[in-house]
Amino acid sequence: MTQRPGNQLFDAYFTARDMREVFCDQGRVQAMLDFEAALARAEARVGLIPGSAVAPIAAACDARLYDFAALGEAIATAGNSAIPLVKALGKQIASTDAEAERYVHLGATSQDVMDSGLVLQLRQALELIEHELAQLADSLATQAQRFAATPLAGRTWLQHATPVTLGMKIAGWLGAVTRSRQRLQALKPRLLVLQFGGASGTLAALGEQALPIAQALAEELQLSLPEQPWHTQRDRLVEFGAVLGLIAGSLGKFGRDISLLMQTEAAEVFEPAAPGKGGSSTMPHKRNPVGAAVLIGAATRVPGLVSTLFSAMPQEHERSLGLWHAEWETLPEICCLVSGSLQQARLLIDGLEVDAARMARNLELTQGLVLAEAVSIVLAQRVGRDAAHHLLEQCCKRAVAEQRHLRAVLGDEPQVTAQLSDAELDDLLNPAHYLGQARVWVERAVAEHNALIV
Amino acid sequence: MTQRPGNQLFDAYFTARDMREVFCDQGRVQAMLDFEAALARAEARVGLIPGSAVAPIAAACDARLYDFAALGEAIATAGNSAIPLVKALGKQIASTDAEAERYVHLGATSQDVMDSGLVLQLRQALELIEHELAQLADSLATQAQRFAATPLAGRTWLQHATPVTLGMKIAGWLGAVTRSRQRLQALKPRLLVLQFGGASGTLAALGEQALPIAQALAEELQLSLPEQPWHTQRDRLVEFGAVLGLIAGSLGKFGRDISLLMQTEAAEVFEPAAPGKGGSSTMPHKRNPVGAAVLIGAATRVPGLVSTLFSAMPQEHERSLGLWHAEWETLPEICCLVSGSLQQARLLIDGLEVDAARMARNLELTQGLVLAEAVSIVLAQRVGRDAAHHLLEQCCKRAVAEQRHLRAVLGDEPQVTAQLSDAELDDLLNPAHYLGQARVWVERAVAEHNALIV
Amino acid sequence: MTQRPGNQLFDAYFTARDMREVFCDQGRVQAMLDFEAALARAEARVGLIPGSAVAPIAAACDARLYDFAALGEAIATAGNSAIPLVKALGKQIASTDAEAERYVHLGATSQDVMDSGLVLQLRQALELIEHELAQLADSLATQAQRFAATPLAGRTWLQHATPVTLGMKIAGWLGAVTRSRQRLQALKPRLLVLQFGGASGTLAALGEQALPIAQALAEELQLSLPEQPWHTQRDRLVEFGAVLGLIAGSLGKFGRDISLLMQTEAAEVFEPAAPGKGGSSTMPHKRNPVGAAVLIGAATRVPGLVSTLFSAMPQEHERSLGLWHAEWETLPEICCLVSGSLQQARLLIDGLEVDAARMARNLELTQGLVLAEAVSIVLAQRVGRDAAHHLLEQCCKRAVAEQRHLRAVLGDEPQVTAQLSDAELDDLLNPAHYLGQARVWVERAVAEHNALIV
Amino acid sequence: MTQRPGNQLFDAYFTARDMREVFCDQGRVQAMLDFEAALARAEARVGLIPGSAVAPIAAACDARLYDFAALGEAIATAGNSAIPLVKALGKQIASTDAEAERYVHLGATSQDVMDSGLVLQLRQALELIEHELAQLADSLATQAQRFAATPLAGRTWLQHATPVTLGMKIAGWLGAVTRSRQRLQALKPRLLVLQFGGASGTLAALGEQALPIAQALAEELQLSLPEQPWHTQRDRLVEFGAVLGLIAGSLGKFGRDISLLMQTEAAEVFEPAAPGKGGSSTMPHKRNPVGAAVLIGAATRVPGLVSTLFSAMPQEHERSLGLWHAEWETLPEICCLVSGSLQQARLLIDGLEVDAARMARNLELTQGLVLAEAVSIVLAQRVGRDAAHHLLEQCCKRAVAEQRHLRAVLGDEPQVTAQLSDAELDDLLNPAHYLGQARVWVERAVAEHNALIV
Repeated sequence: MTQRPGNQLFDAYFTARDMREVFCDQGRVQAMLDFEAALARAEARVGLIPGSAVAPIAAACDARLYDFAALGEAIATAGNSAIPLVKALGKQIASTDAEAERYVHLGATSQDVMDSGLVLQLRQALELIEHELAQLADSLATQAQRFAATPLAGRTWLQHATPVTLGMKIAGWLGAVTRSRQRLQALKPRLLVLQFGGASGTLAALGEQALPIAQALAEELQLSLPEQPWHTQRDRLVEFGAVLGLIAGSLGKFGRDISLLMQTEAAEVFEPAAPGKGGSSTMPHKRNPVGAAVLIGAATRVPGLVSTLFSAMPQEHERSLGLWHAEWETLPEICCLVSGSLQQARLLIDGLEVDAARMARNLELTQGLVLAEAVSIVLAQRVGRDAAHHLLEQCCKRAVAEQRHLRAVLGDEPQVTAQLSDAELDDLLNPAHYLGQARVWVERAVAEHNALIV
Repeated sequence: MTQRPGNQLFDAYFTARDMREVFCDQGRVQAMLDFEAALARAEARVGLIPGSAVAPIAAACDARLYDFAALGEAIATAGNSAIPLVKALGKQIASTDAEAERYVHLGATSQDVMDSGLVLQLRQALELIEHELAQLADSLATQAQRFAATPLAGRTWLQHATPVTLGMKIAGWLGAVTRSRQRLQALKPRLLVLQFGGASGTLAALGEQALPIAQALAEELQLSLPEQPWHTQRDRLVEFGAVLGLIAGSLGKFGRDISLLMQTEAAEVFEPAAPGKGGSSTMPHKRNPVGAAVLIGAATRVPGLVSTLFSAMPQEHERSLGLWHAEWETLPEICCLVSGSLQQARLLIDGLEVDAARMARNLELTQGLVLAEAVSIVLAQRVGRDAAHHLLEQCCKRAVAEQRHLRAVLGDEPQVTAQLSDAELDDLLNPAHYLGQARVWVERAVAEHNALIV
Repeated sequence: MTQRPGNQLFDAYFTARDMREVFCDQGRVQAMLDFEAALARAEARVGLIPGSAVAPIAAACDARLYDFAALGEAIATAGNSAIPLVKALGKQIASTDAEAERYVHLGATSQDVMDSGLVLQLRQALELIEHELAQLADSLATQAQRFAATPLAGRTWLQHATPVTLGMKIAGWLGAVTRSRQRLQALKPRLLVLQFGGASGTLAALGEQALPIAQALAEELQLSLPEQPWHTQRDRLVEFGAVLGLIAGSLGKFGRDISLLMQTEAAEVFEPAAPGKGGSSTMPHKRNPVGAAVLIGAATRVPGLVSTLFSAMPQEHERSLGLWHAEWETLPEICCLVSGSLQQARLLIDGLEVDAARMARNLELTQGLVLAEAVSIVLAQRVGRDAAHHLLEQCCKRAVAEQRHLRAVLGDEPQVTAQLSDAELDDLLNPAHYLGQARVWVERAVAEHNALIV
Repeated sequence: MTQRPGNQLFDAYFTARDMREVFCDQGRVQAMLDFEAALARAEARVGLIPGSAVAPIAAACDARLYDFAALGEAIATAGNSAIPLVKALGKQIASTDAEAERYVHLGATSQDVMDSGLVLQLRQALELIEHELAQLADSLATQAQRFAATPLAGRTWLQHATPVTLGMKIAGWLGAVTRSRQRLQALKPRLLVLQFGGASGTLAALGEQALPIAQALAEELQLSLPEQPWHTQRDRLVEFGAVLGLIAGSLGKFGRDISLLMQTEAAEVFEPAAPGKGGSSTMPHKRNPVGAAVLIGAATRVPGLVSTLFSAMPQEHERSLGLWHAEWETLPEICCLVSGSLQQARLLIDGLEVDAARMARNLELTQGLVLAEAVSIVLAQRVGRDAAHHLLEQCCKRAVAEQRHLRAVLGDEPQVTAQLSDAELDDLLNPAHYLGQARVWVERAVAEHNALIV
């Protein structure tokens, strides 16, 4: 085969190998050939072509028989991958059975082959992603429960706020995964449909046998028969791309949180260590968030790719030029990036290292200020919201200015002590007493996860 | 009120008025106030605040009482819309009932108010869009059936291909609408959920009463209670934006088709005429596709806006800065653009003018070439696919070169006449005999539409 | 005037008022009217229309005379803003001088009016942005020099690395601003061009006088005459949008850095305080990065809007439908968001609060690990890179495991002490001795800034 | 070497081979090695390392010595490509000269290697693109002049308007190319700069010799020394991506125009024919716009990719995680897509087939309506603009309704004949007399093109 300049240096880092295999040249060609073999079987079942033609056709439908580099060159002239492949397929069949060659690809058009082939690939991609999501969700559920009572500072606008628990954070990541699993379930019947319309979508070339053949073909490929061919109605594909975009975004949030928690100043959780992982060529002590980088990277790249799919929707008439072409590499790229993000996310959550002691220490960084709310709420009920708010604001400012703990400042403030006893103040300023519904949120997220399993 | 420089010149053209009203300043403020009133009711039901506080709070929760320009200035300092609104609300309540003012907004955080308010607005938006989609689908179904047997040239890669019917084209537009209606149904339970978590999402400020209050509040607002607060898990909103993006894209395809069919050279369908509509200041005869322009425009703008939502997903920790802000105007803009696209689409399909005679004339533009396939398929069964393909290719080239009708060229070609009789050739070259499953596709799309209605 | 539902709640926060005024309805209408008045003057100069027609036309070219709401409704029918405006303008002129009305808009097409009007607005926008950038650059240069010797931890992958200085960080922000100022200078001649082509771009309607009129019109408006009309060649506009995108991105990086440095755990710099600024409704002690949120928000929104402009470039033939429409609100939105980002950036840098003591304390967080490189480099020269790297890696791990300072660990390690004396080690572990070219970088950035001023 | 699943089926169609070679694994690795070799030379020149180390290091800096698949796996652990490459490079050097190995990569950090390597690749990419643009511009200039007097219908909103010439259309495509060539010239000094900062950007590891080494290194690589390292200031790269986006968009407009002119109904120009080119598997007569599809496809894909670059700009502190990663494959992909678009554009314009006779026939499709303006303008000067407009509108409608030529209708209309003689009407309705400045526009565009050459 002709040598082609490869561009795969970052494949192992950014994508999962099994997903790359789905969308590699061989995967793409095999999926188109699977369509052609199934078409022959369907047309033989209905009686359009002789049964004897099926075996020679099917035998030639093996991607390993074809020269992808030569195909690539032919595609540049033909304008799509099906024309040269069908031509090569015909030659391959004819080399063993000239008669059978007459019966290949009957009634189909290039886009039927390419789109149905794509759907077969997407079915594999969907299975891989659903499997990975399920595994990831299990890990998240386990870790959420494990750390359900581990307090750390809540952070809003990157400022410390009232405490939360690590389990609740993880449960948040889990909830998003669960919802996207529901979305994939819901779109599956829309996505996994046959493309088969012939030249303009009417299947006119097949005459009366058209619908029976279409039904048989759908059966052969275990796809549904859509309400009509969808050569220029691409919403099914874009919907899938968009849900993958949601997954990338949710994992991006996961990665962002991890990378922030790993900051030298926070140092509360860490990616699992591995030999050579995250080392720096100049800073031997560093442990870089190598996995989180992939999650953030994918969440940065996928939105642009998804917008390409949306932009390519207004496809002209019965078959588009250019807009259709814009999909060919874009949707596979999304699948691959999401596969890589999932791969890293699992490594990350499975081996997550947690420093609960550091979390506790960090909770004291504001010297009690993060629990000002606890005091404020109780005071508000006694002196009114604005007054309480104002009073606490003053005490907090004083605590900051004098670099004292809020507890001490409050204890010195007559307007406060007139309302709250020492014991009440002690209680209000204990983080462990101020975790609210954190545990309930974990339970609810895990319950939704479990509900999906059943 | 302070005068602010308005920027609304294209609103009536690009958006629907009822949708603009959902997202205008008043709509936004009222939705936040609806949250505050409901919170007071819920907290009174659970006993956290006295029942007597509810009426004064509710009375103040009327957007018409507030100065939006002043609010806007205060937002620039506060960094969100809830802080100044709650402040103004407190003053408003205090002006009639100082006691009640103590009980407003208890346990809620700014993002609870803004996000829950947004969900209330999105519920209205969803209803408007579902209503419009249903009306549009009805019209499409009617027109698809009306033109189910009206042939016109199929066009692939903008070249004439085998004939299709106008009904089948319209049924294609309908199918996409039907699928997006299914998608909206499916996402509704995920989208229409309460946001209520307090400072960091734990509802700690409400102690033991937190969950009952959350449940009562959800009931008051007729929203579901999510598995946990979703301040930085934005997939629900982005999913909605993405489905709106699918609608914009599908309507963009509709608009693109119309604009192409309206071309001077095609002149097969036209947007409905209206006084002054689509006139040109310099070309008095023109009838510009003024509605299609809106459909194409929205399909061009929405992908970028949707990608913004995806890009804004990796929100930090418990509450994000900047990424959250990026949503505030983006999702409303998507809703408004889609509303305008729907508005124009309905005008377009309801009053669509069809020139079936011109369609028939255009079908003859290639002098029979678009029916070459019909001949090719039959010949392939007799002499093999490649041979037939090659033979037809030669005849077609000759027809083009000699500017003769394909029927005549075929009739002169011994290799053809050896296989096909004159009667067979006549039949094969009649467009009306080569519409395949066009009518079936219409029936199937209409059936799916009807299934959704029931 | 008809009341229209406004949507401006976030305008003051996200955008600058003077930029909003450029693009508000009145700004847009006035710019189109400025074109019409200039056209009348130009056509009178060349002798196409009588000089007496100029004054009545010019008098009517005052935006305050027109009802924008009514215009908006008419736009929805006409498909663009010029047709109804020219109609209203004609009526306005006719009400004072029926004769003059004959001579308005002669030879121009709608898009000439809209595009030239837009260029006039963009000229104003460009001036505002250049002014703001210059002010911002001055502030950045001042602050960079002020903090040129203030050390803080360098942070790579969000992990502490070797020390840098705050001045060097600020100089980095400055460099990006300087480059974008150069870009704006370079694009100005391409952007500030007349649009004037008549119906199809040939100016045929003006006969022999076309070119003289075009030249006179360009002069009147102080715009260049482009090589030909650019109704469907939109690269000039998109280039401007893209450079604005670069500014938004560079400011987003500035905002991101500030927000990270403001984290409770870092607390090294702060946005300037202001009454009520960045307060939280539930966390009275917080100082939220309210300005940084705007910078990050704009950097998140502008990329999607810029991609819309790029997507809208393939405009059909002599005048596009839909793609052109997609620009109308998008480019102004980009201008406004960038104006808001600039406004906040200046507030931020002018009043930046710096805690140099905290920076020094944070530099000790890793107990000397950030200076491991200093040691490693020297050791590498004596024992080889890999050996040195390995040795330091071991020492750093030991320092972490034993929670000791790296200096102490190194002092205990014979392989180290065999190569480095105590004095050498002390020196290598002093951050103040390891700032490299930080001061040079500041000088160079300031020099480039100054070079631009001259 | 390990076998990796390739995904290159569409490479030959969508991209140019020489550009793929710039960005293939070997190109990427070689560029990084070129940096390392140059660094050794520079450090030897300055005296940091012995001159004897240069040759062994340089000898090992040959990409063919490395196993890209193994590198790819190591990247997945290391988080970037430089760490494992430098490790492998060290081993390679040590295998021939253990002493020299000590002196490789001194003072540099991973991102220095990757970014400077990238700039070296971008320099090659820039040269390829500038060369292709120059060739394309020459062809466009030639064709614009050749068809400067070939009239065809102007088309606005896809409706026939007053006539233009093919030369003027081509000159429009040329103008956009010329402007982007200017842009590339302008950005070159900003783009072609060294990246060299060491761990945090201060070059501290190199002590006093840092600046001389940086200057020597820049000289060795023939790059400029920037004002400071730009590890997280990515505007230079994004600017380049954006200008490539402008090229893609301008070529997309070219492709869109060609595809529309090739429509069966228009049939005015055609892509050059080639054996097997643009054939359809089911429609033997078709000549699909295979090249235009690539232009449109690239213009659809590049905007999303460019928006990714913009979105990745807010990179944290001294070195970003995730956002930097998002660039690695995105900018090369943009370069490759633009190279493919340019490759097809040249094929298209060089061999453009033009049917001037068909253009003339199509000009008559509206039976004179496209020249209504000519009449309207003259009438307006006699009876006022609104009256003239109204009168022509009536005549045009009558012409349409009665399916008569506008000339005939006008000749029957007393209000017209009162103002215009028969001879005047004949003249006004001759398309050849109504081409305005078309020829001037061609001359001006060609002059700007020629000015760039000199």
